[in-house]
Amino acid sequence: MSEFTRADGRTVGQMRPVTIERGWSAQAEGSALISFGNTRVLCTASFTPGVPRWLKGQGTGWVTAEYSMLPRSTNERMQRESVKGKIGGRTHEISRLIGRSLRAIIDTKALGENTIVIDCDVLQADGGTRTASITGAYVALADAIEWARAEGHLPRKAQPLKDSVAAVSVGIVGSTAVSDLAYIEDSRAETDMNVVVTGSGDFVEVQGTAEGVPFKRAELDVLLDLALASTAELTQLQRDVLAGETAGA
Amino acid sequence: MSEFTRADGRTVGQMRPVTIERGWSAQAEGSALISFGNTRVLCTASFTPGVPRWLKGQGTGWVTAEYSMLPRSTNERMQRESVKGKIGGRTHEISRLIGRSLRAIIDTKALGENTIVIDCDVLQADGGTRTASITGAYVALADAIEWARAEGHLPRKAQPLKDSVAAVSVGIVGSTAVSDLAYIEDSRAETDMNVVVTGSGDFVEVQGTAEGVPFKRAELDVLLDLALASTAELTQLQRDVLAGETAGA
Amino acid sequence: MSEFTRADGRTVGQMRPVTIERGWSAQAEGSALISFGNTRVLCTASFTPGVPRWLKGQGTGWVTAEYSMLPRSTNERMQRESVKGKIGGRTHEISRLIGRSLRAIIDTKALGENTIVIDCDVLQADGGTRTASITGAYVALADAIEWARAEGHLPRKAQPLKDSVAAVSVGIVGSTAVSDLAYIEDSRAETDMNVVVTGSGDFVEVQGTAEGVPFKRAELDVLLDLALASTAELTQLQRDVLAGETAGA
Amino acid sequence: MSEFTRADGRTVGQMRPVTIERGWSAQAEGSALISFGNTRVLCTASFTPGVPRWLKGQGTGWVTAEYSMLPRSTNERMQRESVKGKIGGRTHEISRLIGRSLRAIIDTKALGENTIVIDCDVLQADGGTRTASITGAYVALADAIEWARAEGHLPRKAQPLKDSVAAVSVGIVGSTAVSDLAYIEDSRAETDMNVVVTGSGDFVEVQGTAEGVPFKRAELDVLLDLALASTAELTQLQRDVLAGETAGA
Amino acid sequence: MSEFTRADGRTVGQMRPVTIERGWSAQAEGSALISFGNTRVLCTASFTPGVPRWLKGQGTGWVTAEYSMLPRSTNERMQRESVKGKIGGRTHEISRLIGRSLRAIIDTKALGENTIVIDCDVLQADGGTRTASITGAYVALADAIEWARAEGHLPRKAQPLKDSVAAVSVGIVGSTAVSDLAYIEDSRAETDMNVVVTGSGDFVEVQGTAEGVPFKRAELDVLLDLALASTAELTQLQRDVLAGETAGA
Amino acid sequence: MSEFTRADGRTVGQMRPVTIERGWSAQAEGSALISFGNTRVLCTASFTPGVPRWLKGQGTGWVTAEYSMLPRSTNERMQRESVKGKIGGRTHEISRLIGRSLRAIIDTKALGENTIVIDCDVLQADGGTRTASITGAYVALADAIEWARAEGHLPRKAQPLKDSVAAVSVGIVGSTAVSDLAYIEDSRAETDMNVVVTGSGDFVEVQGTAEGVPFKRAELDVLLDLALASTAELTQLQRDVLAGETAGA
Repeated sequence: MSEFTRADGRTVGQMRPVTIERGWSAQAEGSALISFGNTRVLCTASFTPGVPRWLKGQGTGWVTAEYSMLPRSTNERMQRESVKGKIGGRTHEISRLIGRSLRAIIDTKALGENTIVIDCDVLQADGGTRTASITGAYVALADAIEWARAEGHLPRKAQPLKDSVAAVSVGIVGSTAVSDLAYIEDSRAETDMNVVVTGSGDFVEVQGTAEGVPFKRAELDVLLDLALASTAELTQLQRDVLAGETAGA
Repeated sequence: MSEFTRADGRTVGQMRPVTIERGWSAQAEGSALISFGNTRVLCTASFTPGVPRWLKGQGTGWVTAEYSMLPRSTNERMQRESVKGKIGGRTHEISRLIGRSLRAIIDTKALGENTIVIDCDVLQADGGTRTASITGAYVALADAIEWARAEGHLPRKAQPLKDSVAAVSVGIVGSTAVSDLAYIEDSRAETDMNVVVTGSGDFVEVQGTAEGVPFKRAELDVLLDLALASTAELTQLQRDVLAGETAGA
Repeated sequence: MSEFTRADGRTVGQMRPVTIERGWSAQAEGSALISFGNTRVLCTASFTPGVPRWLKGQGTGWVTAEYSMLPRSTNERMQRESVKGKIGGRTHEISRLIGRSLRAIIDTKALGENTIVIDCDVLQADGGTRTASITGAYVALADAIEWARAEGHLPRKAQPLKDSVAAVSVGIVGSTAVSDLAYIEDSRAETDMNVVVTGSGDFVEVQGTAEGVPFKRAELDVLLDLALASTAELTQLQRDVLAGETAGA
Repeated sequence: MSEFTRADGRTVGQMRPVTIERGWSAQAEGSALISFGNTRVLCTASFTPGVPRWLKGQGTGWVTAEYSMLPRSTNERMQRESVKGKIGGRTHEISRLIGRSLRAIIDTKALGENTIVIDCDVLQADGGTRTASITGAYVALADAIEWARAEGHLPRKAQPLKDSVAAVSVGIVGSTAVSDLAYIEDSRAETDMNVVVTGSGDFVEVQGTAEGVPFKRAELDVLLDLALASTAELTQLQRDVLAGETAGA
Repeated sequence: MSEFTRADGRTVGQMRPVTIERGWSAQAEGSALISFGNTRVLCTASFTPGVPRWLKGQGTGWVTAEYSMLPRSTNERMQRESVKGKIGGRTHEISRLIGRSLRAIIDTKALGENTIVIDCDVLQADGGTRTASITGAYVALADAIEWARAEGHLPRKAQPLKDSVAAVSVGIVGSTAVSDLAYIEDSRAETDMNVVVTGSGDFVEVQGTAEGVPFKRAELDVLLDLALASTAELTQLQRDVLAGETAGA
Repeated sequence: MSEFTRADGRTVGQMRPVTIERGWSAQAEGSALISFGNTRVLCTASFTPGVPRWLKGQGTGWVTAEYSMLPRSTNERMQRESVKGKIGGRTHEISRLIGRSLRAIIDTKALGENTIVIDCDVLQADGGTRTASITGAYVALADAIEWARAEGHLPRKAQPLKDSVAAVSVGIVGSTAVSDLAYIEDSRAETDMNVVVTGSGDFVEVQGTAEGVPFKRAELDVLLDLALASTAELTQLQRDVLAGETAGA
């Protein structure tokens, strides 16, 4: 495997440069502009007191997410879903994945009857938009919770975050398992897997799909190894960014 | 683990009674009414010469799927998606999963420029509707292909089926890994995983989700063992059913 | 008229074999799988305490119905209305007809502030789907009311059913009036009439349409005679079925 | 029956004043503003060479209709269907009825591959909007066909009209059968029937509905007598109007 | 400029014949059928006690408007927006313009917590439909307010009308500025401007658009002069009409 | 007027800091991230050979625009229009305005049968989003045309740009006319006017609206003076930016 070369010169387990611009939005309670190479996603967290009707009176909060791509975030312009008048299956699927991933590390009792809506808008797409979204969304979420404590919407000692969460895509490209696929790799991958992992290293989601040839159990094991290594790096970056000062409003 | 008892008395790796009524529909080119216990899904395969516009002239066929639940297939009546005017995220997600699972075992070149649409309509729901759908859809698909050969829409020797495919849900319920979750188990599972496996025993899809506590790698391994055992049973049942005579039209 | 032969050998006033499988669904409060020959409709009745907002506080109940066809219930696959994003005119028309037919034999005062929603889903279509729906829906409705009494949602002596109701299609095919048209007859009928009749033999709905040549009053009279004879048979079958034991949950 | 008095003093078989203003629209190929008392409907006929795709190359024409009510045509303002984003069941039902009624008197071969779209827009509603629509639509249709002949879109001798068509509502109000129900009568009718009749006196549509008590066969007979008498009057008025000069463009 | 001749012989500042038929509708609280030449718009005003939820408890009323064109109001039939399932941009834009124009002359405090909905339905279109709509809507609005005072929904001395409002289109056609463009002029205008003016001669809206060549400040000034002259005429007509007796219900 | 102070210390005619980051997107043929103070809009231009069906074969090109706001671009989160399933009136209105403004300076013959779609997505909103959109869109458009020439989609000497275009909002706030209103000024403006001006100083659009008190002609004149001065500044900035090197792809 040593002589395998990826299109952009990365080693098999190497992620693209990842940056997180915390507090990018002047309006949202928490926000982050995250880049995985050329993939750029603006994540905002909107905090509102109160919960949807079906949750009222239970003393628990709610976290949900919406994902969307700008029409020209991709190489060819896509029609807007607002113009089509309906949301496509892929958008629904990713929005639900982001929401589940964040709820997995939230203590909804500690959140009280408050709602946080996460918006992940892809400004530029080059593979890995859903995993970048989850990773950036966690930072926006953490800042919105901090804001709520500072504003008195949550008790000073409330800690709704049970852990952190990050995600990466791994896959088999030309018989080789690699981490953090760029679009050009993703489009010709035989197997594509998105893995969502907590800061403690446990799995929140494992979604593996054979695009071409079905995959063997040994291949699955290698992919999971890569994913755990990459998400550990992302966890460290999230910690560093949140330890710094907010750039935003 | 030996003293663990499931609500319906099954052992951890035991599936509910599975039956496949092949050729249930008098109209479709292939069909199967499949039951996993109280879960009943009507799967039909509609064969049409020609392909969607974006595939024309490439000499390859197309297989796609749509999943839906009757409004009173569930314990409480749900509103119809046709009445709401839009398809929900869960429906989209499952339709896409069924379609991908079937395409994984199809040689689209051998299918020629023909389209097969699979419809999986849940008549009664008690957990595992998507895995029952995939397992039943394969039988309907195989019969539609046989029909197309008999009618001369495909060459006598064409074999678009590269393998068979079946699926099962596995999960961790009360700290124990079990196979083929009924609704009551599914609703309180800590981890829920849908696994789609070819007749040869390779993975097409692995979708594991932590509903409560994130899961550890060792748990993932036990779940995959259960899934491979159950799908091997389903594969054998599919073979037996397809070796028999068609009941239908 | 004696030597006229129908495609399937029936006499002019003879219905196709009619069967009603009562209690087919394990989930619904009342259900029936009805067949008029190859036409098969699953009818479920969902009982819910309470009424829509516009009826609140008036002490009366509500019965409504929804009709739908599975995409491959017909000879050529139809697009799903949930995918189109809207319900077609024919579906609306039939849903409204079923609802009106059932309300005609319901004493809404005796039903109290409760709602019953009838779903008629056509699993297989070969003509007469709307009349089979009405006939089967009555059985599901009767069982849901019985269930509500047993569960204490209605007083023991409440009798919201004022009568029974059944329906048949009649028409003029090749100058001859016939009853219970199969699809092949319906598609070339000059006049098509759906007649909904109470157990007492009075009319609830008479909907006659000239598909080709306008019809004369004498023809209308013959058609009504046929319809009354056939619905009397259906009424008897409903009674027999409801006098038996429930097969269902 | 002689001493029965209707709210507006009419006898049981008497229609409200009916007027037809032919050629009301300066734009349409045929048009009529028809009044049945306070009910006023603007009917336009739009002639276009060519037919919908599914009819191409068969040498036959197409006639279809759309019905709609202005939001404040009724006593209380209704929401626009364009604002709701979907067309209701009642609108669909009436549009389809108007279309079928007109096609019953059209020789589509003689129409050639041309399309006529009828629009019936209710400007003011006081009962009988669907029957006024059909009656006025015939006049607009006849003028559009005349226009097409004059403009050379149809051969000079082509006669696509096989007959004329008119419609009236009849019903049982307070145990008495009456013709041409105004809204106040319609809202408390026990049985309501819309009858569409050709100029020759044959039936195109008979749609009777028991709103309260199911109706007996003898009642049905009386209602049909009234309907035939009233539609004969309407047929005569249509002839008189079409024999005059066009007021319109 | 003296020898310039418009297609219909008018001088540059001359409007087409304008008529207002007040009280055209028997149902609405206020109504007017207004004509600017061949352009005919039915304007109704619907008065309802109460306000939308977001205004409740503030002691102020609400006035809003909806604009629509009948499908065959134009020279070629347009598809209905209810059939398309959505309202187009132009319709939205004009509805919002009419609403803003009327609210500009309404004292919402004096209106109390009441709502008036204006509907402007174009029966026939020949240019200037939005300006005719505003001008006619004012008359309907004034009558609805008078009705509300007479019925006791408003105090006898309440005067929610602060002023009157009227509108005209002006434009540059073939280098010449003209008033009240008919469709044939509008379609080849270089600049098109809609001007909404109060009875006192102040501006409510000025919307000028260069269709071809951008316009110069001097041209803008000439167009405004024309608009002020024409709207002064319309204001006088509105006063005359409202001083007369209501024709309507 | 000299002692009047704006909330952010600006003089009446002073714009907020305006920056244009050219080539922000790596995917689009032309792009610009424009800021008017805290208002930030991402403008992309997508060039595609070919035109919509209704323009084919006429030898002319097409330029159109779509505007949208991210859900949390505003101070309170708005629901996505894709989730609502329809585009609101304001969005339609602004999309149409941007498209018209750009087409006013395009020679569609010189563009050949090519289409350019402009997307203006508001990342952060603080007043003036539509005027910032137009101003930034021009830069993206100019770069897309330059790209098309470089790639050979347009002849080397083709110049589809007849002029440049820029826009500003002006308004009367507390009796004083000011330029480039921030959200806090806009929300309490008595009159609000958006003015679109070519590089040569002629008007493309003038849209003035009285939000409170109708405005007088003298006020209109002052507002136009301010608008011409501010757009002249924007024109200069566009020239400077386009004279520099592209930062983007």
